[in-house]
Amino acid sequence: MSSQDSNQDNGHAEPVARKGISRRRLFGAAGAGAVAVGAGAVAGRLTAPDPTSGYDDVVPFRGAVQAGIVTPVQDRMHFAAFDVTTDSREELVALLRKWTAMAERMTAGKQATEGGAVDAGEYRPPDDTGEALDLDACRLTLTIGFGPSLFVGADGKDRFGIAGLRPQRLTDLPKFTGDALDPARSGGDICIQACADDPQVAVHAIRNLARVGFGTVAVKWSQLGFGRTSSTSTSQSTPRNLFGFKDGTRNIKAEDPAAVSEFVWAAPIDDQAWMAGGSYLVARRIRMLIEPWDRTVLHEQERVIGRSKGSGAPLGGRDEFDPLELEAKGAGGKPVIDTDSHVRLASAEELGGIQILRRGYNFTDGSDGFGHLDAGLFFIAYCRDPQTQFVPMQQSLARNDALNEYIKHVGSAVFAVPPGVGDAGYWGSTLFGDAGPSVDDREAGTPGQ
Amino acid sequence: MSSQDSNQDNGHAEPVARKGISRRRLFGAAGAGAVAVGAGAVAGRLTAPDPTSGYDDVVPFRGAVQAGIVTPVQDRMHFAAFDVTTDSREELVALLRKWTAMAERMTAGKQATEGGAVDAGEYRPPDDTGEALDLDACRLTLTIGFGPSLFVGADGKDRFGIAGLRPQRLTDLPKFTGDALDPARSGGDICIQACADDPQVAVHAIRNLARVGFGTVAVKWSQLGFGRTSSTSTSQSTPRNLFGFKDGTRNIKAEDPAAVSEFVWAAPIDDQAWMAGGSYLVARRIRMLIEPWDRTVLHEQERVIGRSKGSGAPLGGRDEFDPLELEAKGAGGKPVIDTDSHVRLASAEELGGIQILRRGYNFTDGSDGFGHLDAGLFFIAYCRDPQTQFVPMQQSLARNDALNEYIKHVGSAVFAVPPGVGDAGYWGSTLFGDAGPSVDDREAGTPGQ
Repeated sequence: MSSQDSNQDNGHAEPVARKGISRRRLFGAAGAGAVAVGAGAVAGRLTAPDPTSGYDDVVPFRGAVQAGIVTPVQDRMHFAAFDVTTDSREELVALLRKWTAMAERMTAGKQATEGGAVDAGEYRPPDDTGEALDLDACRLTLTIGFGPSLFVGADGKDRFGIAGLRPQRLTDLPKFTGDALDPARSGGDICIQACADDPQVAVHAIRNLARVGFGTVAVKWSQLGFGRTSSTSTSQSTPRNLFGFKDGTRNIKAEDPAAVSEFVWAAPIDDQAWMAGGSYLVARRIRMLIEPWDRTVLHEQERVIGRSKGSGAPLGGRDEFDPLELEAKGAGGKPVIDTDSHVRLASAEELGGIQILRRGYNFTDGSDGFGHLDAGLFFIAYCRDPQTQFVPMQQSLARNDALNEYIKHVGSAVFAVPPGVGDAGYWGSTLFGDAGPSVDDREAGTPGQ
Repeated sequence: MSSQDSNQDNGHAEPVARKGISRRRLFGAAGAGAVAVGAGAVAGRLTAPDPTSGYDDVVPFRGAVQAGIVTPVQDRMHFAAFDVTTDSREELVALLRKWTAMAERMTAGKQATEGGAVDAGEYRPPDDTGEALDLDACRLTLTIGFGPSLFVGADGKDRFGIAGLRPQRLTDLPKFTGDALDPARSGGDICIQACADDPQVAVHAIRNLARVGFGTVAVKWSQLGFGRTSSTSTSQSTPRNLFGFKDGTRNIKAEDPAAVSEFVWAAPIDDQAWMAGGSYLVARRIRMLIEPWDRTVLHEQERVIGRSKGSGAPLGGRDEFDPLELEAKGAGGKPVIDTDSHVRLASAEELGGIQILRRGYNFTDGSDGFGHLDAGLFFIAYCRDPQTQFVPMQQSLARNDALNEYIKHVGSAVFAVPPGVGDAGYWGSTLFGDAGPSVDDREAGTPGQ
């Protein structure tokens, strides 16, 4: 199983994970549980294992639900929100079809379109921008969502004949206590979440989708997340957020299908039938005021969060995954886990059983102009109904969370995430139906219907 | 050599590269050229090799030159420029000493200070912010530089008694044709370049250095680079920039010590003696106007760059590393490599032999407010003398480079990068001397001299 043969020490090392020798081809055939053999020596050095790559390289694109939700969280993210700039339903549907075809290709590790970066001929603009040419799929997932404003414009207009199909649970979020939202980082008609273990793969995907959308959509805002700050699978360790605490220990995990079914996926009995198998995405750009936090004593930090910083164990517990002892009392009869602690207020126990699936990322975007880093958490949550899950949770947190002294919500958006693309569908086909020309028809020059 | 024993399938996978089982300990003892065995199955899945981790996990901090220059380029970068906010030389030197101790620890994979995130006691602010607690060194390097304004203030003031030690070659760069510099992304008294294969490690390092600098320095600007766009070693493959082209094929490589010596390291005979073994860092934030680029035909893109997009070969050649045939003529007697092509204008052949060491990164920072991504190249170059290397090169490029239609220089800075820290020195000790209290003295409460 050694692949030493494939390494040529020609003075310029071959990238190990390039197209021709994909991880999947190297390892896909071996049985689960086998010990993987590294891809050999690169220029006389050792290849150490990647702690994050214990998964197949390609996440299937088609399925009953969209990938990128319960998929084990990839390391990096590029998230974009778009304004639709056309009034034409036909143009919008044509773009969704085209995007679907491109997304299916790119998540498989292929170039964005058949023509690719160099094969369409030298007298055409390349069909793919090329910066991921030497890279594998890197578990890329692309997940689309539709904002409330896609259904009904600011003027109440039925922009694309889908106003009657807007789910009641898809409405702009209410203003929460302390919100300091920047309109330039909020909302959007359409979102695309790109997650991958290599950031260049995620950036390439968003960039190529934005590129072909020119004239139909425009980027409203985008966010790069440099590191995941939650887990959606028990196979993943819990990462740390920029407050230095393990984040997402109690997150819903893919290995708990009952919770996923109850709290993540919209069901046929919910609201709009076209959303069955879909979900709702809430994005919040949460600026962390890391300087005051960093000047806070450890005891206070742990009181605010409700967990030990080192182990991640809930206060009063020893192991990260110990249950929250919300009733436990310490010295003087005070609760061991503070009444205003983040872990308590965000717990299902205190929220009448509510849970959400978190899938957020750490970010840092330069400085804020006042000598500090502009850093924080790009919070993403998926839930079956934002109005009865995220909203009451955030109302409670916004009012009482001791963490509010150290954070500021500066961006916000909500999107209806349609179900997965079946064998013949496209992104949004349960919403828009099969009307509109197919990509193939358009590329062949056939006029749309 | 299997490390299966160290994996416990307890339902929550152990991160493979956590502190206790560092890559270095797992693999450091094996001979060069051996086939590495992956660290075993994580929760029943395979561990595939990381294409970028064929190096020791720790890059030594102390040495004749600073790490992070000819070190094989790490995948991710966080770069920060600081203003010094104190007038006290003593405070500045104390911070440089403190930073040195922290940098040495963090590049070794340790927490920022002895006290760490949780061990200093619960009634103190933690000494480390904690977000890298579970992560290895990930080849972290920290490289410091001093800007012209550290030597002489805007008012001509000798701020810290080092005006006479300013190297003549350390002056603000001249304005180049087409420059559209944002003062908020330019300049700075001090820079720190953090490079690592995990972005959280780089961000953590900058953040902790900024944190302890409070009151002495303030972050002026910072830049996250999500992917390297050059190689400094023949052991590395050439990455692609966001124009989709391989970038840095002809870069100086560490394996060419004569070129490194001639073009990178300041020598004792140069200018100021304290800079011997140092270098000069030029940073340019280059916004790529990717939308017009993406609408340009492949032939024109290749003419502008002077290389084939697919292989990276110079036009007229077949292999990426083929020599530039600058004299070759094609149909109609026109040069095969256009007279205004980027590769020609940036070539040593056309620049009287000038070379520089490039170490740049791709970036994307949200959107530009006009429906486009704010993306590009954060160009970093190291050279022995910016005035006779970078400046004439950039003057030629700024005037004639066909690429100028698609790029805009929006940030600029230059720094003197002092030599490496020897056994007893600190960052800048050849400049500031041994005056000022040591970190140990300060921490013990001993007043400075």
